[in-house]
Amino acid sequence: MRHWVLAAYDIGNEKRWRKIHTLMHDYGQPVQYSVFVCQLTPTDEVKLLARAREIIHPEEDQLILVRLQPIGRSLNNRIRSVGRPLTSLDIKKLQF
Amino acid sequence: MRHWVLAAYDIGNEKRWRKIHTLMHDYGQPVQYSVFVCQLTPTDEVKLLARAREIIHPEEDQLILVRLQPIGRSLNNRIRSVGRPLTSLDIKKLQF
Repeated sequence: MRHWVLAAYDIGNEKRWRKIHTLMHDYGQPVQYSVFVCQLTPTDEVKLLARAREIIHPEEDQLILVRLQPIGRSLNNRIRSVGRPLTSLDIKKLQF
Repeated sequence: MRHWVLAAYDIGNEKRWRKIHTLMHDYGQPVQYSVFVCQLTPTDEVKLLARAREIIHPEEDQLILVRLQPIGRSLNNRIRSVGRPLTSLDIKKLQF
């Protein structure tokens, strides 16, 4: 089953940051500088984590995947935002 | 009821970033440069969003709060990470 997944990363240097940012575009949409919203199956998650492990420095960097609900249920009641709009601008692009 | 809440923010300038980072320390623990894990009641969320709204630039900045599960249930099966450890290092500090 495909779930909404929030990905957030802290990368210690510019070169690795760009590689992770490029990798993440294969899996979702950026909603912030280092935060993506994705729609992933468990297999997608495993593949993403494996590919990220090849780039990430084990002590300096960190990528977290936060699994939310199945994609059939809207994120609106789960995520609240202040400032730049989130759902109206970014999440919409994720609709397959 | 108190829930685990993930907070992530994108702030367009250093001064406002520092203010939001300081504010967030009233509500949780940093797990990444711009990501905090919090344990919040709905009232805490409302207060946090109101205080953030006074700092945040409506077009340049964004703070998102992602409500996860009640704090009684561990985050371990919800969050997966690569690189720097998350739960063993950071979340533990949140146990009241």
